[in-house]
Amino acid sequence: MINVAVMGHGTVGSGVVEVLLKNHDSIAKKAGEEINIKYVLDLREFPDSPLHDRFVKDFSIIEKDPAVKVVVECMGGLHPAYDFVKACLLAGKSVATSNKELVAEKGAELLRIAKDKNVNFLFEASVGGGIPIIRPLNQCLAANEVYEIAGILNGTTNFILSKMIHEQMSFDDALALAQKLGYAERDPSADIEGADACRKICILASLAFGKHVYPNQVHTEGITKITLEDVEYASNYGGVVKLLGRVKKLDDGRLSVMVSPAIVERSGQLAGVEDVFNAILVRGDAIGDVVFYGRGAGKLPTASAVVADVIDCAKHVNRRKLLFWEDKAEGYIADYLEVPTRFYVRLSAQKPMETLAAIREEFGEVQRLSRPGAPDDELAFVTGEGPEGELRSKLDVLKKQGAQVLGMIRLCDY
Amino acid sequence: MINVAVMGHGTVGSGVVEVLLKNHDSIAKKAGEEINIKYVLDLREFPDSPLHDRFVKDFSIIEKDPAVKVVVECMGGLHPAYDFVKACLLAGKSVATSNKELVAEKGAELLRIAKDKNVNFLFEASVGGGIPIIRPLNQCLAANEVYEIAGILNGTTNFILSKMIHEQMSFDDALALAQKLGYAERDPSADIEGADACRKICILASLAFGKHVYPNQVHTEGITKITLEDVEYASNYGGVVKLLGRVKKLDDGRLSVMVSPAIVERSGQLAGVEDVFNAILVRGDAIGDVVFYGRGAGKLPTASAVVADVIDCAKHVNRRKLLFWEDKAEGYIADYLEVPTRFYVRLSAQKPMETLAAIREEFGEVQRLSRPGAPDDELAFVTGEGPEGELRSKLDVLKKQGAQVLGMIRLCDY
Repeated sequence: MINVAVMGHGTVGSGVVEVLLKNHDSIAKKAGEEINIKYVLDLREFPDSPLHDRFVKDFSIIEKDPAVKVVVECMGGLHPAYDFVKACLLAGKSVATSNKELVAEKGAELLRIAKDKNVNFLFEASVGGGIPIIRPLNQCLAANEVYEIAGILNGTTNFILSKMIHEQMSFDDALALAQKLGYAERDPSADIEGADACRKICILASLAFGKHVYPNQVHTEGITKITLEDVEYASNYGGVVKLLGRVKKLDDGRLSVMVSPAIVERSGQLAGVEDVFNAILVRGDAIGDVVFYGRGAGKLPTASAVVADVIDCAKHVNRRKLLFWEDKAEGYIADYLEVPTRFYVRLSAQKPMETLAAIREEFGEVQRLSRPGAPDDELAFVTGEGPEGELRSKLDVLKKQGAQVLGMIRLCDY
Repeated sequence: MINVAVMGHGTVGSGVVEVLLKNHDSIAKKAGEEINIKYVLDLREFPDSPLHDRFVKDFSIIEKDPAVKVVVECMGGLHPAYDFVKACLLAGKSVATSNKELVAEKGAELLRIAKDKNVNFLFEASVGGGIPIIRPLNQCLAANEVYEIAGILNGTTNFILSKMIHEQMSFDDALALAQKLGYAERDPSADIEGADACRKICILASLAFGKHVYPNQVHTEGITKITLEDVEYASNYGGVVKLLGRVKKLDDGRLSVMVSPAIVERSGQLAGVEDVFNAILVRGDAIGDVVFYGRGAGKLPTASAVVADVIDCAKHVNRRKLLFWEDKAEGYIADYLEVPTRFYVRLSAQKPMETLAAIREEFGEVQRLSRPGAPDDELAFVTGEGPEGELRSKLDVLKKQGAQVLGMIRLCDY
C-alpha cells in the first residue's frame, strides 16, 4: 500500500480525491499497489467529504510522516506551494503537481532536488490539463530531435476567439460570456494577457530542449487587442486567429519562445481547435507533426492527469523517472525582434494612395486583404518574411507618414 | 552500453537504423546508456549500409548472443517474426516491434512470456505508426476508466476517402492514385478490406480493457462498397465518411468491437482528419475525449516510435514496464447485430411512394436525405437507433417489397 497526501482540496485537489476513490480498484491494479489517501491538507473544513477524518491543517504532519511516500500538490500559486513541495522532496517524498506556475518558475530547482533525493517530481497535469503531453514528449518522442512546439494552451482565450470568429461576438461580450459559463475567472488577466499560456510553453520548452526557460524570458502578448475587424481580415486571408504558445530551435542552437496571437491557415492542424479545447503540435525530425488534443482544463481531466502521475510515483518508489532539465543558460533565448516572422497589418491612412505607395516602398509587393464595409481609409495586408525588428522599423516609416497601425498579428504555418 | 539487434532491414527496419545512428548522442542521453546496433538480420545484402559489416542471415547468432539485450522486430508478417520474437523473449531479451499482425494475433502469449522472463515486450509503433498512443493509453490515462476508443487507423483508406469527399474522385481512381503515390500496396486488400485497421483496434481494445481481442472476433468491413453517391448523401446529412476502428464497453461489461465505414458529423473530432493522417480518440470517465493525431505510417515516424521503445527497454533492463493483458475470455465480445446503432440507407425503389410508406411503417419518421441529380427511384434516409439486427430485419421487409439496398453506412458521434 502506498500512502498519499493531497495538498489543496479545491477544484483539482477534490477531483484527485474523487478519481482515486472512484477508480480505486483499477488504479491499484495499474499501480501494482493500493493507493491510500492518508491526509488531505486544506485550511477549510469539508465535513461532507468521505475523507473528512483525514483532513489536516498543519503541513508538518505530512512532512514528518515517513509513511507518506507520495504527495499531490494542487494548491496553486507559488507560496506556500513551492515551500511545501521543496520540503516534501527534501524529506524523500515524490511529488505530483498540477501547478504550472510552480513548475514554470521553480522546475529546474525542484527537479534537481528530486534527482539528489532519488525521488520523482512529476507534473503531467501542468500543461494541457488532462491531455497527455509531458510523458509523450519525454518518452514516446525520445527518438526524435524535436525542433518546434506550438500549442493552443489556454482554453479561456480559445473560447473567446472562437466566439469572435464564428459568432462575430465582440471581445468584451465573449469574455463576459466566458465568465458567466465559468470558463474565465473574475480577474481574467492571467488568461487573456497570456501569462497562463506562457507558463505552459515554458514547461514544454524546458522539457523538450533540456534547459529551463523562465516566464520572464518569454515575449508574451495576450488577445486583448484583437478586434472583430482583425478576425474578418484573417478570414479573408484564409485563416483564423489563435493564441499560440510556441518554441522553436533556431539554427544557431538558441530558442525562440513566444506567446502571442497568430493567424493560422484554416486548413492547418490547429485551426479547427474550437471553444475551450487545447491542442499541442510537436514537430520532430523523425515523427513529423504530431498533435495532442483534448480538454486543457476542468476538474476531472486535470485530476486524471495528476492521478496518472501518482500511479507512476507508486510504481517508481526508490527509482527515478528520467525527467529532468538543467537550469537556464545565458544567451539561450533569442530576442524576439531578431526572429524572422510575417505580419498581418491593419492601418488607418489619411492618404491611402500615398500610404499604399509607402507600403510598396518598404515591403515590396504585399498581399492586400479586404473586408466588407471597411472604411475608405483602412488598409490591410500581409508582409513577406523578415526579422521582426526590421518589419517593425518599416512600419515606423509608415507611421511617420501619418498611418496609424490599428492591428498587427503574426502569421504561423501550423 | 546496450547491444541491440534489428531484425528486418525493410522500410521500418532501415528507418530504425537511420534514427539510431543519426540521433545517437541524444538517444544515449535519454536512455542513460549508449545504444549499439550489434547485428542487423536480413537475408538480403546491403553493401552500402554504414553497418554492412554487422549484417547476419542466421537468427541463431542473435538468439545465442547473451550480449544482445534488446531486439527490434521489423520483419512484418506472422512467420518467422513470431517464432523469432518468442525465442528472443525466452532467451531473456526485451523486444520492440512495429508488427501489428504479430501483436494482434500473439500479443497475450508474448506478453505472458515477457512477464515470466522479466523482460519487456513493447509495440508503440504497431498502432498509429509514430503517434504516441500505447504509452499514453497505458500510463497517462491510467487514472481513467476508458470506455470507448475510436480511430482513423489506416492512412491508405483515409486518403482514398478524402479524395472521394473533396475531389469527387471515384473509389477506383482514388485507389489507383494512392498506389501511384506509394500509399497503397500493389495488393491493397489488407488496407481497403479493413484488416489493417482491425489489427490495430484489436491491440487498442486488448490494452485498454485488459483481455486479448483477436482479429477473427471483430466484425470488419472495408471501404470497397462506398460510392460517390454515399459520400454526397453523407455530405447532405452534414457528415463525412471515414473508416473507423472502434471499441466500446457495453453496460453488461462485454465489448463491442468493429471496423467499418462510418458517417461522422462534420464538426466532430475525427471529421477533419484528412489524407494519410491517422487520429485516435479515447473517451475516459475523467478525461472526457482526448485525440492523438499524426502520421500513422511512414518510415521515419514509425521508426521513431520503435526507437522510443528501444530507449525504454534500455532504461528498464531487468525491470518490467507494467504493460500486460490477459488472454481472451469467453463471451467477452458482443455480437455486432446486438449492438445499438443508426444507419444511413440508400435504396432503389421501383415504387418510391409505396417504399416510402413502408419505410415509415418500419422505421417511423426518418430523416430524408437528398442529392442533386438523384434518379427518381432513389431514396436515402437515416434511421433512429436500434440493435443492428433489428434495423437489418426492417430493411429485409423493404427488400421483400421490391426495394434494393444500394448503400448503408453506420452513423457515429465522434
